[in-house]
Amino acid sequence: MLSKSLIKLVNSLDNKKFRLQHKLFIAEGFKLVNDLIRLNVPIKKIISTNFDEKLSHIAEYIQCKASELDKISFLKTSPEIIALVEIPEYELVTKDLLKKISIGLDGIQDPGNLGTIVRLANWFGIQDIVCSQDCADVYNPKVVQATMGALMRVKVHYVDLQSTITDLTKFTDFQIYGTFMEGNSIYESKLDNNGLLIMGNEGKGISEKIEALITKRISIPSFSGGFAGAESLNVGVATGIIISEFIRQTKK
Amino acid sequence: MLSKSLIKLVNSLDNKKFRLQHKLFIAEGFKLVNDLIRLNVPIKKIISTNFDEKLSHIAEYIQCKASELDKISFLKTSPEIIALVEIPEYELVTKDLLKKISIGLDGIQDPGNLGTIVRLANWFGIQDIVCSQDCADVYNPKVVQATMGALMRVKVHYVDLQSTITDLTKFTDFQIYGTFMEGNSIYESKLDNNGLLIMGNEGKGISEKIEALITKRISIPSFSGGFAGAESLNVGVATGIIISEFIRQTKK
Repeated sequence: MLSKSLIKLVNSLDNKKFRLQHKLFIAEGFKLVNDLIRLNVPIKKIISTNFDEKLSHIAEYIQCKASELDKISFLKTSPEIIALVEIPEYELVTKDLLKKISIGLDGIQDPGNLGTIVRLANWFGIQDIVCSQDCADVYNPKVVQATMGALMRVKVHYVDLQSTITDLTKFTDFQIYGTFMEGNSIYESKLDNNGLLIMGNEGKGISEKIEALITKRISIPSFSGGFAGAESLNVGVATGIIISEFIRQTKK
Repeated sequence: MLSKSLIKLVNSLDNKKFRLQHKLFIAEGFKLVNDLIRLNVPIKKIISTNFDEKLSHIAEYIQCKASELDKISFLKTSPEIIALVEIPEYELVTKDLLKKISIGLDGIQDPGNLGTIVRLANWFGIQDIVCSQDCADVYNPKVVQATMGALMRVKVHYVDLQSTITDLTKFTDFQIYGTFMEGNSIYESKLDNNGLLIMGNEGKGISEKIEALITKRISIPSFSGGFAGAESLNVGVATGIIISEFIRQTKK
């Protein structure tokens, strides 16, 4: 049986404040939990409806009834296993970004979009995403489930985005890319094998103070015939298209 | 005040069966409703908390209290206006696809993914999406809100995908593209200015019977270092990346 304090702990991890306080997040389902174990991510507790000898050596192992797991799960269809996973700690060393392509997110609100961007970053070998403090939290249960193991292979840094970019602009041969309607077509622009690609909020785009720091304005050309109302791409799709073009030009 | 029968009608339009029966779908919010009007989409009824002289000439106009609109809205934050819009009728003439790039969807389940794909199709000037009958319905209120006006500028056909593709394979110089792990890199493949790009179900990919009809197997190269668990792209992102590469090679 699950103790009241454990149920309370799991429930609290839906809230960013408590995730930070306990330095824990929730991962659900065998596939994800196994991926995390394979990646050597430290797991604090495993709660499961089955007993698994191998998993029981990895973390404190708590067996419970399906109905109990059902109550604490954040998923529509309850998994047979839930893990309480330690939030990895890492620092951003700005200079480390100079030799690679990274993504900067300015106020991305939707957990689904953030999850999609983490997955595509992992796909294309992007190692770092720098997020403004008002972005969705990457350890939100929805983001964790959407990214699967990718979340453990991409470092997501929450920083003062303005001052991080300001630091980066001090270096020559390093561009801060931003997407704007009137920017140069990504197909016609020379994209470098290093740089920071800034993607803006779903509704408002890149904020003014960040826009002032952009050194290269690019755009994904539209062929929609100029009907303004329908002219927008999902931010995850736009990020994927631009990163793909970076990769094509520099790595393919 | 809203009549009981009108409330019942609006509620029923959450269900595909009733949308098809009434040939109506729901659009919410000033921006979307105005976009539809600009695009000359026939609107049957407008329900709003305000009286708008101009809109009142466009369709049967019903004024109501905010609390009433609140009850029938499908959105978290209620809009001030809801329109009952006629589902456009169009037929797919297979031969019309021969000169252009179109998208084929094989069992896309998530309304959000479908909405994202409709938006990017509109962005890149793709005119037709052919969907297998088991795809999410594009007039689902969630998809309608996600696509905004784009839905009215891209024709989404629900067909027997297998027989539509079989018809298309009879023509020479027309490729059926499908994405597979071991396919040729999109960056290295010659992509034509016509063809049908098949995207598969979120979990299962392209079904066997459709896979048998693919004439060109392509892939988005991964740079994730081969960690299988985390290796997948959201289907909307993957579609965007591939269509962008088609456009770059043929239209830019």
